[in-house]
Amino acid sequence: MKAVWKLALRTPNIISLANGDPHNSLYPISQIDFKVPAVNTENPCSEWKSGDGPTQTFTSYKDKDCALSLQVALQYGAGAGLLDVRKTLSGFNEMLHGCTSATHDVTLSLGNADALTKCFRLLGDPGDSFLVEEFSFPGMTNAPLAHGIKWVPVMMDEDGILPTSLESILEAWDTDTRGKRPHVLYTIPSGQNPTGGTLTLERRREIYKIACRWNLIILEDDPYYFLQYDRKPVSPPDIESEGYGKTFAKTLIPSFLSMDKDGRVIRIDSFSKIIVPGMRLGWIASNPFFAEKLESLTDSSTQHPHGFGQAFVAEMLGPKGWGPDGFMRWVGSLCDEYQRKRDFFLKIFLREVGDNGFATVGTPTAGMFVWIKVHLERHPRYAEEGPTSSNVEELMDELFNKLFDGGVLLMPAKTFACPSDNRDSTRNKLNHFRATFAGVDGTIENALVIFGKVLREFFGEHAAS
Amino acid sequence: MKAVWKLALRTPNIISLANGDPHNSLYPISQIDFKVPAVNTENPCSEWKSGDGPTQTFTSYKDKDCALSLQVALQYGAGAGLLDVRKTLSGFNEMLHGCTSATHDVTLSLGNADALTKCFRLLGDPGDSFLVEEFSFPGMTNAPLAHGIKWVPVMMDEDGILPTSLESILEAWDTDTRGKRPHVLYTIPSGQNPTGGTLTLERRREIYKIACRWNLIILEDDPYYFLQYDRKPVSPPDIESEGYGKTFAKTLIPSFLSMDKDGRVIRIDSFSKIIVPGMRLGWIASNPFFAEKLESLTDSSTQHPHGFGQAFVAEMLGPKGWGPDGFMRWVGSLCDEYQRKRDFFLKIFLREVGDNGFATVGTPTAGMFVWIKVHLERHPRYAEEGPTSSNVEELMDELFNKLFDGGVLLMPAKTFACPSDNRDSTRNKLNHFRATFAGVDGTIENALVIFGKVLREFFGEHAAS
Repeated sequence: MKAVWKLALRTPNIISLANGDPHNSLYPISQIDFKVPAVNTENPCSEWKSGDGPTQTFTSYKDKDCALSLQVALQYGAGAGLLDVRKTLSGFNEMLHGCTSATHDVTLSLGNADALTKCFRLLGDPGDSFLVEEFSFPGMTNAPLAHGIKWVPVMMDEDGILPTSLESILEAWDTDTRGKRPHVLYTIPSGQNPTGGTLTLERRREIYKIACRWNLIILEDDPYYFLQYDRKPVSPPDIESEGYGKTFAKTLIPSFLSMDKDGRVIRIDSFSKIIVPGMRLGWIASNPFFAEKLESLTDSSTQHPHGFGQAFVAEMLGPKGWGPDGFMRWVGSLCDEYQRKRDFFLKIFLREVGDNGFATVGTPTAGMFVWIKVHLERHPRYAEEGPTSSNVEELMDELFNKLFDGGVLLMPAKTFACPSDNRDSTRNKLNHFRATFAGVDGTIENALVIFGKVLREFFGEHAAS
Repeated sequence: MKAVWKLALRTPNIISLANGDPHNSLYPISQIDFKVPAVNTENPCSEWKSGDGPTQTFTSYKDKDCALSLQVALQYGAGAGLLDVRKTLSGFNEMLHGCTSATHDVTLSLGNADALTKCFRLLGDPGDSFLVEEFSFPGMTNAPLAHGIKWVPVMMDEDGILPTSLESILEAWDTDTRGKRPHVLYTIPSGQNPTGGTLTLERRREIYKIACRWNLIILEDDPYYFLQYDRKPVSPPDIESEGYGKTFAKTLIPSFLSMDKDGRVIRIDSFSKIIVPGMRLGWIASNPFFAEKLESLTDSSTQHPHGFGQAFVAEMLGPKGWGPDGFMRWVGSLCDEYQRKRDFFLKIFLREVGDNGFATVGTPTAGMFVWIKVHLERHPRYAEEGPTSSNVEELMDELFNKLFDGGVLLMPAKTFACPSDNRDSTRNKLNHFRATFAGVDGTIENALVIFGKVLREFFGEHAAS
């Protein structure tokens, strides 16, 4: 069938009775309007949130001029997405990461879960081993288990993966006992889920070097990339000369994609955290060979993303919409809002938990999560019996239940422990909760008041000095 | 992770810091408007097509009352889709097929390709054999080959699958040489792709009985179900008493789903042919056990369908939209339009090809396709050398190329031949082209003029008497 289409595409005047495509004159949708904030104000996000900021409308038409006609957006299309949308996002990637479609082609996805599960399937055969942060998002790490992929956890600290751990795993790998050496590293480099850590630039460079040395493919899953905090301020003269988008981009930490000379990075981006999760449309940058395989797999599984979302993206980034500069103004304003939320969380945490030493948090510089460390070694019933047989898990279960009974839900670390053959490596690191600061202030405050109280009771009953 | 969510869902007042969900106050979309035809006129489709019919607007709001708030539609959701949308489509299925969610639960899909590939994956292990029409849609039959599924073609005529062929395959199955007996029948029962055939009610009943006897699961892939022609007229007294939707539904041929007592039918429905292909949202009816598995697979692969489409469906079928009755008015009007197109195609075909006996077509009663039979036995170079070694394929290739050089593209039958181990069974039936009548009149007319001319040349050069 593909051979026939290719033949037809090369022959522009061909009259086709080949396809079962409904004609666009029969689409019962002639116009779609999305009401959105105007972004030419000082702080579009906070004005929008308060409900009285200026608005604008992205409009897609079937029969009038716009960035992407609904005649095209609402028809069947190729698995990689519509060329106009791919080009727009390719230009966006060039602004952000300095790479072009010649080395890194853009394929649309149905969001990061879809993108990643397709990559896992394309890159892994049953019995293969993939590398991953020792704590990661189980929605993704569980997905390829049914396909026979085994995960190998890489040790991490508050800044993410430890390059030394990565290198030593690869160096010590015994192919006789463990099969093929891992050829894929799956990582969430910014605002990591669940730890909230962000790989420093230095670590990124080291990891990329290790990837070159051991010929690893890096799956860079970066949904929180656009939510970075404590950045350098954007420079007004730069905005003047280069536009807001490019100037803002320079305040973000460089991605693995931006370092990639070999086509070994597959970068996966999302609108879920910066527009809406229900959009279910994202974009993948990969070398053209991988892009072709991703498109084939898409054509014979999910098909391309919906036209409503492609129309939205085209108008949003198009000449009558926000454009790339306006989009980054929205993102910048959203960063300010989340940074304020983070600071509010940390302030209330300090107030409610204080310096009693029962629990501490770091200061995440990206994303939506803090990784609360519970200092169980101070608990009277803590029993350290060697590195792999403590009662950390039991005590954390007990604390989780007490918190739940008290009325607050936090995600226990064990939910995120890498599903590898050997759970011993993470057993003593389960003394953490993932908490989000993405909610509203009242929720954060109420939850942390309970957390502080339950924590004191938990430790205090028989408090150690 | 799921265990934690379930715990949380049972505890309504819990304060959660568990999820990384952006708060809806930060969604930069407060309203979506879809401009659509009003359907309270005599023939909404033809008025809309001409561009001057009355219109209406489906509107979704984030902060105002509507069928499905954007606060919910644009957030993360469960893999099966939002409960409100599933309930709406479940009610719709009840109107059409008389089944409820107690026996056949509704799961949303990203369109039929997504639904089917998920079903193939859930129902088949490597080495399993599935039954299918001997000519079917290659986009689907190719999909599970990589997973090790083998296809077994069932013979068909202009009305679709021959029950005798189905029965004899199952009866003659030798598990020693061929492995497990097939347990899945994949079929497109209405306006079949590519043959355009529609299974008669009698055949549907026979096939369902065979399925019961041999314990087959029926995958009823029915994207053309709503496009049925030469139906009984809708009865005005019935409309008065039961509403338009239910009255219209009674003019449609009963589905396999409507006959299903055992939960062995998985029915897959689509908006692609009756709303727009780019919507990429459909619905699956299956027994609750299968529905649960479909949801799990969705949660660990594509995730749920996009919120834009769920919002659209909710408003379309909701109290301020078309509602089920109005939706069926649109569908009925669309049927009239496609029936007119079909008749136009057949009229021009008769004019251009006539009764010279070189090619003939049937009269499809559903869908978008006619299956043009080329009477190669009348061609002077036709060489019948036994049932499996004629030159049908070579002559059809030659004709395809002549048509293409003449400027018209038709889909050759060989594109659709079931990809089974043994292609012999379809070899002598490759003397067909699939043509669509879904396009505009001018295209149909221009294409058939060329088709008639090239056909006469092809046969006429050395025309047999």
